[in-house]
Amino acid sequence: MTDHTVKSFDVELGRLNDTLMTMGKMALSQFIVATEALAERDDSKASQVVSQDHRIDALEHEAQNQTVRLLALRQPVAADLRQIVAALKISSELERIGDYAANVAKRTLVLNQHQAVPAVDGIVNLAERVQGMLEAMMVAYAESDVDKAVEVWTEDEAVDKMYTSLFRELLTYMMEDPRTITSCTHLMFMAKNIERIGDHITNMAEVLYYLVKGVPLDGDRPKGSDVWSNG
Amino acid sequence: MTDHTVKSFDVELGRLNDTLMTMGKMALSQFIVATEALAERDDSKASQVVSQDHRIDALEHEAQNQTVRLLALRQPVAADLRQIVAALKISSELERIGDYAANVAKRTLVLNQHQAVPAVDGIVNLAERVQGMLEAMMVAYAESDVDKAVEVWTEDEAVDKMYTSLFRELLTYMMEDPRTITSCTHLMFMAKNIERIGDHITNMAEVLYYLVKGVPLDGDRPKGSDVWSNG
Repeated sequence: MTDHTVKSFDVELGRLNDTLMTMGKMALSQFIVATEALAERDDSKASQVVSQDHRIDALEHEAQNQTVRLLALRQPVAADLRQIVAALKISSELERIGDYAANVAKRTLVLNQHQAVPAVDGIVNLAERVQGMLEAMMVAYAESDVDKAVEVWTEDEAVDKMYTSLFRELLTYMMEDPRTITSCTHLMFMAKNIERIGDHITNMAEVLYYLVKGVPLDGDRPKGSDVWSNG
Repeated sequence: MTDHTVKSFDVELGRLNDTLMTMGKMALSQFIVATEALAERDDSKASQVVSQDHRIDALEHEAQNQTVRLLALRQPVAADLRQIVAALKISSELERIGDYAANVAKRTLVLNQHQAVPAVDGIVNLAERVQGMLEAMMVAYAESDVDKAVEVWTEDEAVDKMYTSLFRELLTYMMEDPRTITSCTHLMFMAKNIERIGDHITNMAEVLYYLVKGVPLDGDRPKGSDVWSNG
């Protein structure tokens, strides 16, 4: 590539990364507001999250278009190509995180039609923990900080354990008071959604690791529990 | 591109498509065996599905490598580029379908430790319906048959409705007999996994539509229910 082409490639790649950073900020903010809506039984906050989800979807399309344009016009190879493929993956992880946050908000709207159940606190704790991971992961991505990404990746084990114990707690509530069954099943799916957000964040850590190191990050993270993983 | 390069590009693209077709066959077979394991309370079939999941993951990596190689060496544009990006997306949808099938199998192993519950039949019906969609979708992809893909895409509405009514049925079982709560929550998550497989199949239909038509397929499919979607 000529010097001019290189510069212009960098500019376009910078734009693609800007799109990802905006997506990351929006996904985090949606997730935070959804958690507040749950904690405060606030329908208007929940509705706000549901109505904003399409903006993250639109940004994912934008990131995809930028990617395809970069591939088609610049025909990058090696490291540049890896960076673009990584960006494409990160954008789809962030879009999924947005979807899960929106689903938490949708279920909050249903939950608010029933009596309050005590297990909500546990879900809020879980959510706040995962929000910290997402925030750290976006910083790691912005700074290509592999060590920070590995730290985030390792944290997911604790999240899986929190999820499993929350799940068992919800089961006992349901057994003790069958009138809470409907609410508790929604809380279970919310907890699952949040645990899945954690998985998508670890995927992002793996993408960054591969991008910077050129080899996969795997093998070492002990999964919290086997039955609860992958779906 | 020269005539020689074109031929070699087609050969490599053919290989990538072979990888996808193998992935599709494996995902379908995993899903079928997982459903049989559930219906027949067969631990060994369930364990078989769990132990085979890594093979689909390995094929996804293979598809990704083939994609990056095609992009880097051939530097395709326009229609060829779109075909490669489509293949990359299809492979990640199929990998997710494999994950969900494996999770159904993992939960079957847990379920088999408890007494049988009647709602299993409903899950099996749902699964068989979605298996039909996956099979049709792989044929549609192999034959670039957009009409068939749209047919599959439309079918997801019925699946969402089946899922919602199954969910309500499970709630009533739990309320009537709290001893079934643990089993029924696993069945709820299994039903959710299968409903999500349906979503991933409709994603594949959308990818194929965009690949062939160059415009997105959207807007028309009435979603079964809002609360249950996206996670």
